[in-house]
Amino acid sequence: MPPTAITRLLGLQHAIVQAPMAGAQDTALTIAVSRAGGLGMLPCGMLSAAQIRAAVTVIREATDAPFGLNFFAHQPPVPDTSVNAAWLEKLRPLYAEYGLEPPTALVDARRPFDRELFELVLALQPPVVSFHFGLPDPTWVRALQTAGCKVLSTATTLAEGQFLQAAGVDAVIAQGLEAGGHRGCFLDCDPQTQIGTFALVPLLVDKLHVPVIAAGGIADGRGVAAAFLLGASAVQIGTAYLRCPESTIGPLYRQALANPTRHHTRLTNVLTGRTARGMLNRTMRELGPLSDSAPTFPLAASALAPLRAMAEVKGSDDASPLWAGQAVSVAPHTMDAAAFTHHLVTVADRLLPGAGS
Amino acid sequence: MPPTAITRLLGLQHAIVQAPMAGAQDTALTIAVSRAGGLGMLPCGMLSAAQIRAAVTVIREATDAPFGLNFFAHQPPVPDTSVNAAWLEKLRPLYAEYGLEPPTALVDARRPFDRELFELVLALQPPVVSFHFGLPDPTWVRALQTAGCKVLSTATTLAEGQFLQAAGVDAVIAQGLEAGGHRGCFLDCDPQTQIGTFALVPLLVDKLHVPVIAAGGIADGRGVAAAFLLGASAVQIGTAYLRCPESTIGPLYRQALANPTRHHTRLTNVLTGRTARGMLNRTMRELGPLSDSAPTFPLAASALAPLRAMAEVKGSDDASPLWAGQAVSVAPHTMDAAAFTHHLVTVADRLLPGAGS
Repeated sequence: MPPTAITRLLGLQHAIVQAPMAGAQDTALTIAVSRAGGLGMLPCGMLSAAQIRAAVTVIREATDAPFGLNFFAHQPPVPDTSVNAAWLEKLRPLYAEYGLEPPTALVDARRPFDRELFELVLALQPPVVSFHFGLPDPTWVRALQTAGCKVLSTATTLAEGQFLQAAGVDAVIAQGLEAGGHRGCFLDCDPQTQIGTFALVPLLVDKLHVPVIAAGGIADGRGVAAAFLLGASAVQIGTAYLRCPESTIGPLYRQALANPTRHHTRLTNVLTGRTARGMLNRTMRELGPLSDSAPTFPLAASALAPLRAMAEVKGSDDASPLWAGQAVSVAPHTMDAAAFTHHLVTVADRLLPGAGS
Repeated sequence: MPPTAITRLLGLQHAIVQAPMAGAQDTALTIAVSRAGGLGMLPCGMLSAAQIRAAVTVIREATDAPFGLNFFAHQPPVPDTSVNAAWLEKLRPLYAEYGLEPPTALVDARRPFDRELFELVLALQPPVVSFHFGLPDPTWVRALQTAGCKVLSTATTLAEGQFLQAAGVDAVIAQGLEAGGHRGCFLDCDPQTQIGTFALVPLLVDKLHVPVIAAGGIADGRGVAAAFLLGASAVQIGTAYLRCPESTIGPLYRQALANPTRHHTRLTNVLTGRTARGMLNRTMRELGPLSDSAPTFPLAASALAPLRAMAEVKGSDDASPLWAGQAVSVAPHTMDAAAFTHHLVTVADRLLPGAGS
């Protein structure tokens, strides 16, 4: 794969970004991908400042290669007690099956990028900072860039891409509808407005002047090569990295990834309060997959937390998010993250013209 | 572009299929694409047997190259008078604005592939017959094949691809969610189950043994090349051919295609009764875009027909289907169909390895 605007911008060997997957990875995956010449990412949305600081130390001890930190840029929820109470009542029968009562209060366990995190990141100076659900205060974005961080964020539509470019990001991640996990949408999250990768990537490439990273439905070397032909300067890959031993997902999630009968994915908001794509589980089937009654992100996750924990102990993913993209069936593999990264490069090199240049 | 399973199967010079677009083209587009070395298709779902026979004569007088006829394979509607009456009442205010009363009865103007058409096609022996919305009686499929026709149909999921392969089709059209016009779905038409082209194509390529034609979001040479890297043996292109002078769309539709502010597409069922992707118009905004109350396909189209006609006379597309895929903004052009076909081949040749082989 030839050098691209992204390999030059971020100082990468390969134009491959590992998608940050909160709750499904720690520094091991980040380190493995960065060492292999891609961009390893650390999801920080569920970590404390101390945990982030420690993780960055671990990464820097393991590799000099570029890496990135990923943060949520959502508005903190304004809890609506009547919505939350009604939702918990809906969950009561499921809780009862597991001999539990629903929780009486919902906890916000997904931290948006706030002043403390801003100052922490300014001090840590990671090579790359990426945001999901929009961007924080534009002055913070500029301050991070002045400190030497390259700033990325995710667009799901042309309007979002134009918004991010106007806000000064260094590159835009074009997240097609196929992508697993949370939609990065922030101007319009109606699932019906979301665009497939095949249309979104050339659209953003044509209309933006910043480089575009393609995400969504890319799970093997064919996908990497095809994304480059559509004009992407790099790809971001999530689901396929989940299969690697470095991911921290539990056995239920790993089994579902390996089981073709579970590979039908859906967009749902009942597991966290925001729309995300994952393999169907019982909570999605019985309460959604999309519901107008779910509490605001991330409170819906808190509403399920005790149920999820008990169900998992009993061997069930009834309430577990099983985030996965629509290409979950494509090219299953059992490689570690370094081998998989090299495999992607090898296959894409073979398919693309100017191989090895 | 090198020879593929599809160019060999169908005897084509180029692995490019022009998507059949009922109501938006006649034989001129079919002939132009077939003469240019692609597969020109004639949509027959709104034609009488006599019209089909005449059209095939026109095509054969113009070219010896392969062409195809396309038919709907839906179940004819069982009219539900209360659903229809309630829907027409919903339309009353829109009709009133144009000084009209809603119609009192709905007419079925989209003919499924029935015995008369089967016998006609058996006699005409077109090189290719493609179906949308599933397949007719499997014995008819085999009889057409015995008569020398290659039979194609559209799949929007793996289950549909497997169904079509088991039914004996010669190739499957993988229609990603990005595609304009009617979804070809026939086992599950819930828009939330539909898959983006980037994930659907490799999935069907990996799991089926028949060749796969990629459709949805492909509007320029980059898309053609990318689809081949994903494993497609050909591409099917609709929206981009609509811009050609050979299409028969009216000025309102043509203006919308040329106007980037109209390029936001949505899936809707309010214009015909089946889910299809098009640029937003007033009927879609006010009655849908998706509605549980719309009459069965194709009766919803009949419910709008007088309104559409009057609105168009008055220069409005309030009730006109403006079918278009999510790549409608990608590579706008003013080429004729032959020049556009050659342009696709030239660009794809340049992007693909082994160019010109």
